Parts: sequence; C-alpha cells; structure tokens
Amino acid sequence: MPKRNHFISQLAHLEIYSPKLEESVTFFKEILGLEESGRLGNSVYLRAWGEFFHHSLKITEGSTHGLGHIGWRAESEEDLQEAVQFIESKGYGKGWIEGDLGHGRAYQFLSPEGHLEEIFWDVDLAVIPEEKQSKWRSRPQKNPSRGASVRRLDHVTLWSSDVSRHNQYYQELGFKYNEGVVLPNGTEVGSILAVSSLNHEVAMFADFKKEHGNLNHICYAVENRDQVLETADYVVDNGYRLEMKPFKHALGEAFTTYAIEPGGNRVEIYGGSPLYFAPDYGPKLWPVEENPNDAWSEHNIFNTAQFDSIHEKAGK
Amino acid sequence: MPKRNHFISQLAHLEIYSPKLEESVTFFKEILGLEESGRLGNSVYLRAWGEFFHHSLKITEGSTHGLGHIGWRAESEEDLQEAVQFIESKGYGKGWIEGDLGHGRAYQFLSPEGHLEEIFWDVDLAVIPEEKQSKWRSRPQKNPSRGASVRRLDHVTLWSSDVSRHNQYYQELGFKYNEGVVLPNGTEVGSILAVSSLNHEVAMFADFKKEHGNLNHICYAVENRDQVLETADYVVDNGYRLEMKPFKHALGEAFTTYAIEPGGNRVEIYGGSPLYFAPDYGPKLWPVEENPNDAWSEHNIFNTAQFDSIHEKAGK
Amino acid sequence: MPKRNHFISQLAHLEIYSPKLEESVTFFKEILGLEESGRLGNSVYLRAWGEFFHHSLKITEGSTHGLGHIGWRAESEEDLQEAVQFIESKGYGKGWIEGDLGHGRAYQFLSPEGHLEEIFWDVDLAVIPEEKQSKWRSRPQKNPSRGASVRRLDHVTLWSSDVSRHNQYYQELGFKYNEGVVLPNGTEVGSILAVSSLNHEVAMFADFKKEHGNLNHICYAVENRDQVLETADYVVDNGYRLEMKPFKHALGEAFTTYAIEPGGNRVEIYGGSPLYFAPDYGPKLWPVEENPNDAWSEHNIFNTAQFDSIHEKAGK
Amino acid sequence: MPKRNHFISQLAHLEIYSPKLEESVTFFKEILGLEESGRLGNSVYLRAWGEFFHHSLKITEGSTHGLGHIGWRAESEEDLQEAVQFIESKGYGKGWIEGDLGHGRAYQFLSPEGHLEEIFWDVDLAVIPEEKQSKWRSRPQKNPSRGASVRRLDHVTLWSSDVSRHNQYYQELGFKYNEGVVLPNGTEVGSILAVSSLNHEVAMFADFKKEHGNLNHICYAVENRDQVLETADYVVDNGYRLEMKPFKHALGEAFTTYAIEPGGNRVEIYGGSPLYFAPDYGPKLWPVEENPNDAWSEHNIFNTAQFDSIHEKAGK
Repeated sequence: MPKRNHFISQLAHLEIYSPKLEESVTFFKEILGLEESGRLGNSVYLRAWGEFFHHSLKITEGSTHGLGHIGWRAESEEDLQEAVQFIESKGYGKGWIEGDLGHGRAYQFLSPEGHLEEIFWDVDLAVIPEEKQSKWRSRPQKNPSRGASVRRLDHVTLWSSDVSRHNQYYQELGFKYNEGVVLPNGTEVGSILAVSSLNHEVAMFADFKKEHGNLNHICYAVENRDQVLETADYVVDNGYRLEMKPFKHALGEAFTTYAIEPGGNRVEIYGGSPLYFAPDYGPKLWPVEENPNDAWSEHNIFNTAQFDSIHEKAGK
Repeated sequence: MPKRNHFISQLAHLEIYSPKLEESVTFFKEILGLEESGRLGNSVYLRAWGEFFHHSLKITEGSTHGLGHIGWRAESEEDLQEAVQFIESKGYGKGWIEGDLGHGRAYQFLSPEGHLEEIFWDVDLAVIPEEKQSKWRSRPQKNPSRGASVRRLDHVTLWSSDVSRHNQYYQELGFKYNEGVVLPNGTEVGSILAVSSLNHEVAMFADFKKEHGNLNHICYAVENRDQVLETADYVVDNGYRLEMKPFKHALGEAFTTYAIEPGGNRVEIYGGSPLYFAPDYGPKLWPVEENPNDAWSEHNIFNTAQFDSIHEKAGK
Repeated sequence: MPKRNHFISQLAHLEIYSPKLEESVTFFKEILGLEESGRLGNSVYLRAWGEFFHHSLKITEGSTHGLGHIGWRAESEEDLQEAVQFIESKGYGKGWIEGDLGHGRAYQFLSPEGHLEEIFWDVDLAVIPEEKQSKWRSRPQKNPSRGASVRRLDHVTLWSSDVSRHNQYYQELGFKYNEGVVLPNGTEVGSILAVSSLNHEVAMFADFKKEHGNLNHICYAVENRDQVLETADYVVDNGYRLEMKPFKHALGEAFTTYAIEPGGNRVEIYGGSPLYFAPDYGPKLWPVEENPNDAWSEHNIFNTAQFDSIHEKAGK
Repeated sequence: MPKRNHFISQLAHLEIYSPKLEESVTFFKEILGLEESGRLGNSVYLRAWGEFFHHSLKITEGSTHGLGHIGWRAESEEDLQEAVQFIESKGYGKGWIEGDLGHGRAYQFLSPEGHLEEIFWDVDLAVIPEEKQSKWRSRPQKNPSRGASVRRLDHVTLWSSDVSRHNQYYQELGFKYNEGVVLPNGTEVGSILAVSSLNHEVAMFADFKKEHGNLNHICYAVENRDQVLETADYVVDNGYRLEMKPFKHALGEAFTTYAIEPGGNRVEIYGGSPLYFAPDYGPKLWPVEENPNDAWSEHNIFNTAQFDSIHEKAGK
C-alpha cells in the first residue's frame, strides 16, 4: 500500500451542458430544489441548500447535453501547488484559468479520456439572504422543502473507453479504488473511486466505441432512502420521467432513482449509502454476472440503456 | 491553512472497561446487535455487522467503567512510521506493543489528558462463518436484524480538563476541528473533530475538576433516523434505560439517543448525520446559550448529567 | 359487547378560532403545507393535499383561540337521519343549519362538556386547478412538498371536566373507547376514542376546573416518523416554537411533535401510529404512573403545561 | 348510497396450504418474523408480534399451495347472528363449525368464486410468555426485531373468473369498493375492497380461465416504507427470491415487495399505504393503460406473471 496523495478534499462542482438552459434550470430548482446562485454569460450557477460553497452545478447552454468540466477542491493552498506539479509531471496539465463565478484561480487538466477537470483552493461561500439564513451554524441556510430538496452534490459518473486506464489515473491523483465490475474475460467495465469516505465521487463505465458522450450521469444526495421514494413521486407527478425507478445498487449499496432532465442529462438522486474509511477496502471486484447494478434482482439488469455498450463487448 | 497530516485513516476500535463483563457483552450483542469476534484473557471482542475488521469494541473486565484505549488505523505502513516519528517528536509517545487479537503491532501514546491511544496498520479481517456470509461483496456479512443492528462504530467522546489544548493535540495529528462550544467568557468547553468526512470521530467536553472519569460516551451508527427510533423502542422494552430519549443535536445535526450499558458506560446510537468535506468547514463555534446540544429546544439543555461540570464553570 | 352505532364515517373538519387570522393562515399554509380552499366572512377554509373534501380546517377570527366546532361526516344519508334521531332522543340536539362552504345541511349538537359538533352527509369535493391535479386517481392533487406537507386531518383533543361522562357520550355515538389514563384513585383523566381504524379521532383530558378552554389540540398526520422529524426542523428553523419536541406517546404509540400556531392553538403533527381494528381492543387503561404520555421516559412527564390540571387533581 | 352492513370488523386470519410445511413455517418465522402460536394436526398457527389475537396465519400441509380459508371477525355477537342470517338468505351459507385453535364457533360460507370463508366472534387472545411481554399496554408483546418483523396481517388477494360479481358479493357483505382496474372494453379485471380504513382487506384480479388457483397473494404490513426496503435486503441475503422488487402500486399507493415462500404462495410485505375513510371514496376506476400496478413506470407492467391472465383477455 503506497502512501496516498491527499491533494484533493472534495468534489466541489460540475459543469454540464444543456440545449434547453431555462428548462434545465427549472428542473433543478423546482424538482431537485436547488437554489440559484448567479448567472454569467450563458451559464446559470446553482447549489443545494446544504452546501456552503457558491455553487455545485453550473449549467451552460450548449448544442447538446454532456459534461463541461469537473471541479475538485484542494486540501490547502500548498496541496494545490503540489497537485499542479504532480499533474504537470504526468502530462495531463492544461494550465491556469483566472477563476469563475464562485471560486478563484484554478488549474485545468485533461483525463486520459479527455474529460476537462480543474483544481482550485480559493472558493466563495454562498451569500445567503437574511430570510433564508438558518438558526443552526451547521447549515448554510434553511432547508427550503422544495421538491426533492437534495442536500448536496454526491458524485459524477463518466463514460470511458478504457476503464482500467481511467481508474488508474484517478488512483494516482489520490482516489481509493473501492469497487469495480469485470467481464468474464477479466476486462474491467466499471469502477468507482473515492477521495473521501463516500463510496465514490467519481465512477466510470465502459463505452468502448465512445458512442454515448462523456457523461453517464451526475448525482445529488438526499438524507435517506425514504426521501428517494418521495423524490420519485415528485418527479413523476410533476410530469418528468424516471428513467429508472427507485432501486438499490449492490455496488456501493446506494438506494437510488434516475431521471432525465429536460436538457438530456441523466440525474441520479440517492440516499443512504454506507461509508468506506479503509484505504484498502477495495477494490471489491464484482463479476458482471453477479449483477452489481441491482441488489435485489436475480437476472442481470446491467442490460439497460445506461449500460448497453458494456453488453455489446460482453457479447450478450 | 497549513497542509494537514494524513497519518490516520479511521477510528478502528475502542476498549472500554466494565465491572459486569458478561452483562455488558449481552447488552452489546442483544440490544445493539454486535457479533462476538473472540475472547482473550478478561476481554471480549465485538464488531458490528457492517465492519470488515476483526473488532471495533474490546470490553475488558475492570473495577469501574471507562475508556481503556482508542485504536486508530494508519493510512499505510509508511504513514504509520511517519505518525510514530511525529508523535515521538511531540513527546506523547509510549512505545510499541506486539499487537492484540485482531491487529498487528501498534504504537501507543498518551493524549495531554492522559487517554491511552494507539495507531497500527496491520489488521485482521473478520472471519465470517459461511452461513453468515452476504451475497453482496460490499457487506462483510449479512445484517443479522438483531436489536438495533448498528452498522459501524462512529466516534468516541472524552472528558477533558482543558478542551482547547486537547483539540489542538488532535489537530496536530491531522484532525479537522469542525465544531466547538464556547462559554460567554470565551472558554472552549466542547470540541468535535474528524479525520474523515464524518462530523467527528473524536469529541471532548469540559470536566474541569476531572470528576467524571475519562469517557463521556462511545457511539455506534445505524442507517438512518428511523432506526434510532426503533432502537429506543427496543432498548426500553427490553428493560434497559434511555438516559436521553431520541433527539437532535444542533452540533453536527446528529439524530441520537443515549443508553447506559450495564457496566456503566454511556452508549450513543445515532443515524443520519450529514457529512463534512471541506478542511475549512470549521470551526463553527457555538455559544453555549445557543443550545448546541439540542436543536429543537429553546431552553438550554446542556444542563444534563452529561454536561454538569460545564455549568459549574459557567456559574450556572 | 352491544352492537355499535355506525352513524359516523369520519372526522371531516374542525373549526378553530384565532385572534390573528392571517398569521394563523400563513402558519397552516407555509409550515403545515395546507392549501387554501376558500374564504367566507371572517373565516378561511383549508385542506391538506391528501384530502378529497373541500376543507378539513376552518379558521375563524375570534377574540381568543379555541375550538369552534367539530364536523363529523355520516356514513350515508340514511345514517344521518338515524344519527339525528338518536342525538335528539339523548337531548344533545341543537338543530339543523343550512350548511357551510364545502358541505350541505348539517345537524348541530352539543357534547355534555359544551363542545359544538355537527353531522352531515352532503359534501363538496375540492376543485383542484389543472396544474395541481395528480396523475394518480388515489390522490386528489399533487403533493406540494411545502413545509410539513401534512397529508390529512387526524384527530382533535378536548379538555373535559368529566372525562368518564365525556367518553361515555362518544361511545353512545358509536366510538370505540381504545385507551384511557387513570389516577391511582381510579378517576379517568384521559380517554381516546375512534370511529375508524385510527387510534383515535377524538380524545379528552381532564381540566377539572375548566381553566384551559375547550381545545387541547388539533392534529394533522404526515406519512411516517421521519417526516415528523423533518417537520420539527422546518418549524424551528422558520421561527416558530415547538412546544414539545418529537417524542413517542405510549398511548396509541404515536410519534409526534407539538407546535403553537400564531393564534395560540396547539397543533400536533404526527406519523406512524398503528391501527386498531378490534371493537374490543380497549379500553386499555394506563395508570398515570406508567407514563402513558411518553413511551421512552422513566419519570412521569404528564407533568407538562398540556396536562397540569390533571396533576392538581392528583395532588402532585 | 345505501346504508352499509357492518357485520365484519376485520380480517382476522388466513389459512394457506403448503406442500413444504416446515420450510414454510421457517420462512414466516425467520424472514417475516412471525411467532408460532400453536400446532394442531397438520397445521401450524402463527401471528405477527403486533397482533393481539391467537393467530393470523394457519399453514396446513397440502399437496399444493393455495388458500384454505379466510377468517373474518364480526363486530359483536349480535352482528355475527345478523351476518349469518344475511349470508344464509343469499345462499352462500355452508354451516357452523365448532371453532378452531384460537377462536370459537364460526359460520362458514362460500364466495361465488368458491373461496371458503368464515365469520366468528369469540376469539382467544395470544398468551404471551412473561419474557416476551411488552411494557406498553398497546403492544401484545415486544417487537422481536427478527427479519422483516412484520406488525400485522393486512389483506388477501384472490384470483377471480368474474371480478364484477366477486366484488358485488363483498359489497353486499359491507365492504367499500375503493378502487378497480378496467379494460378498454369496460371489463373489470381488478378490484380492491375494504371493511375498515385500510385501502383493502380483500382484492381480486381476473383469471378468466381459472388457471392460477384461488390465491394471488397474502400480505403482511410493516411500519413504513423504509422497513420494506430492509425486508428486501433480508429476504435476498438469506437466500430467498423477491418475485417483485420494492416498488409502489398506484392502486392504493402501497409501497411493496413480493416474495414466494417455499411452499409456493406469493407473500407481499408492505408499508406506508394511506387510509381511506369516506364510504364514497370509490370506486376509483383505473384504465389498465394507466398502469395502476406501478406508480412510477411509464410502460404498463401489469404484464407480469402476477397478472398474465388479464392480458390474455385484453388481447395484449
């Protein structure tokens, strides 16, 4: 067990593209319950009520859905410098930007799969209007009790043409490789990795022919499983579609549901996943035949739109 | 923000003393739902069903209740060595022991308040009998659905004659000082610190005259708030006493209940606390007048047996 | 076991008085999540999202808080006639009124304690604007996810100078006497009675000197215990006061919290109470020393503002 | 709205057949958490921990699975007599039996579909050993916290060759026809009816050619939706199969999961269904195209083993 890098403290924000910016914003505000933090150019910035930072989601108008970039926060200014040195040494580096609404200068880099990522230290705390301020110091603001009322950003799941290479890259950056999915021939087709005690902040699933774009889904967390069920009611009864009804992943034991937001991005809402503290917890490698996607089914339901490219490879 | 030490990955186990060993063991097995992992000398080793390590609790026969020691697991063998060097340099070191049932050699040290602690890397995984093995790789064993069926050890809370010095000591070891409680005169009388994304693995509250022993309480976690309520029913209807009925701490937003186990140790069961990822989340400093112990009361109920020594100092 | 009357099918609505009409309406709409159904004279009519009838609460401007009347719905037009005959034969009758916003003609009567009650058959269903209509036929409208988002009216609890006489009166009307509270000298100081499978639609507690007005509290139900906890957060963080934090009654096993609305009426929010089907389930008589108000405490907390008049009698 | 009969107070027990008696008993005791109440001949009697009566389930050894009989309890001795008169007048009567373990003499009768039913008044309360007695008078015994730990019997669902005739028969007996499912041609293919405030105690679905036996499923209730999820974990991880993973019926809004017990009977576990008090709540008639079986799916999943005979008729 080599000493692990601790450059990164958390997944701070995601940028996604939407061809229907205002409809996407409405979905995230009214159905997920996010608060609007600001607007700049063709982008709208949003945050969950339980988040102290300026935003966790930036939606930018685009010709199609997909991931703009992933924003990681460093552990400290010194860690930021060390991270940049490390990333440059590996050849992933792209360079510094002056920052964005809500955070200071950031160093951008590219994953081996071409996903744009950035790391930064200086961040703006959300400015909460007085009438929304909470009486509890542990809350940045009151729970608005609006729609799913998600509490915080949880993770991002990417498509990858080479899962092993992709997860190796994150391990080098300090992530723990917690769980994976393997084909009978040994090929890794799924990986989940964590930089904190979460089950994962980033995951990747195989899209061998790069047909699905760069983003499988983004995920926000509610407080518990019952709130996932309430979310399902709320999504459906307000005219949106659940792509996958509430169910339990075996992988990570997350209780979850999936919707497609109006811009076309898949959005997971999840609650009640256990925590993993041991650096050598994983990797737990699940044969795809054990159906790691669905804890309660006997038959393998990796066979969904979400994962069809895996099955092509597996010859199923 | 100085670079943080990352020697320690998690709170691995606690040793407590009990003058009624077998009655204590029965309480933890039948009411909390722990599994017995082994016995050695006058000690019984126990673990929660969701834990992969050999044990998270060691109960040793003793003349009174209290804390034996705190067991921290390192992040790696190399981190263990660095931790030992650091601890020795600070003058806290006590020396190596050969290990115990369930883990390899460990380095012992003393907090400024005299609590015995140890850090180790090599750990034994629990050996699960076949009939208890889970079909899910993310679970070390089946949930036995016995009593509270707690999933994992959460934290330990200590008494301290000097809270500020005590929390400074943990910060040096790499803990994040998340939240604190302060008297009107500025004296810190409570601190909670975390080495992971939990709200805290260790906390300390003021016992200025050292009258209460070394242990305020130990805490195990269930999956959610509703399970805390089920636990309360189970504890009471099986003839044990709740010292504090289910309620919500403002501090850390934990939903919680407290029982006294037959040996006299206070045991917290808690579920549904939010996670804190930012290294600079805290310290959130709560004036004691804001009643950080109880989120839903107007009057200050820090005025309980659990905290009476604080009030003496505060002149209340 | 004599044959039971089945005149009444359900508790349909309550009228309460408020000296601060608009503030009370705001509390019920924003904190409990009720919908406004209409206004007439000095009254505002409200309903929970899960209720099909026009309203379950009528708030009328008054000089002080208290109960206006209790509205029971008959089982059928024929049952209404039989009920009226029976009530008149008992001497409780007051006479017919032409109806009110939301229901047709009703027969009014007075309990032995002087509470005004009415029974009716014809009722108006709520007219739901199209954008609020649910896709499910079992829901009168979408869940608005606003505040506590209570689902339905549950029960009313009255003050009574003679609990035994008062509960006898309801038994004659067809209610099951499910549970009671008795002093050591045998005096009944509390009773809960049900006309359906609920634990109770009506309860009465002793106010020997008639000092507390006619209303102890009204109660709305949420879906489960966790929603009671969410309600507590919402009430407190929006500047209202919880009179009693979430806890569990032993009586009826209801998980509950109490707030005082701006007009001064006590409002209970509760979830997760079991159902009672047997006509001879009760009466379960709880000695007051067994602490039927609080399932999880050892000491008797009937000693609260809610019940102080009982203790006067009991000489405590 | 004609006056409704109130002969029946509740669904008291069900008898089912099992070709694997001991394996079935083990399933109900270890997985659902039932208590064994007694044995007589080839039958084993069981009850849920929250039930006061001697038993709610009688499992009798048989050559195949299926329903033995349905046991309804009367509202009173007088109601029993009136019920018998009524049933005899309708020609459904079969005659008195001397009683069974756990209840006194009962009158047996046959539904138009040939299901054996009985009604009785005298019932034995469960005799609870001292160590299992609860400190709360509202509980017949402690919650054993074993497996799903279901609280009470909820309902029985039957196959029927003529759903309209079958539900008419129950309406005559005093049941409220709450919700139904209809084909595009108007044929009723499903009905749910209640004698209490539950959504239903009895339901029937179309099996036009009588190919599926007499029993669709029996259902026990847990306290809330989260316990349904825990049940799913427990069933699957203990080697039993879920026929249907946790999901939500639109019909009745029940959150539910289905297992097949070792004897071949389908068993539903469900929690969190709303209550219906109005005698004229229904019938809410759901076109089968609206997918009343599954609240969260767009496509109609009435297309399952549970309902295949309906689709044959519908020509799907």
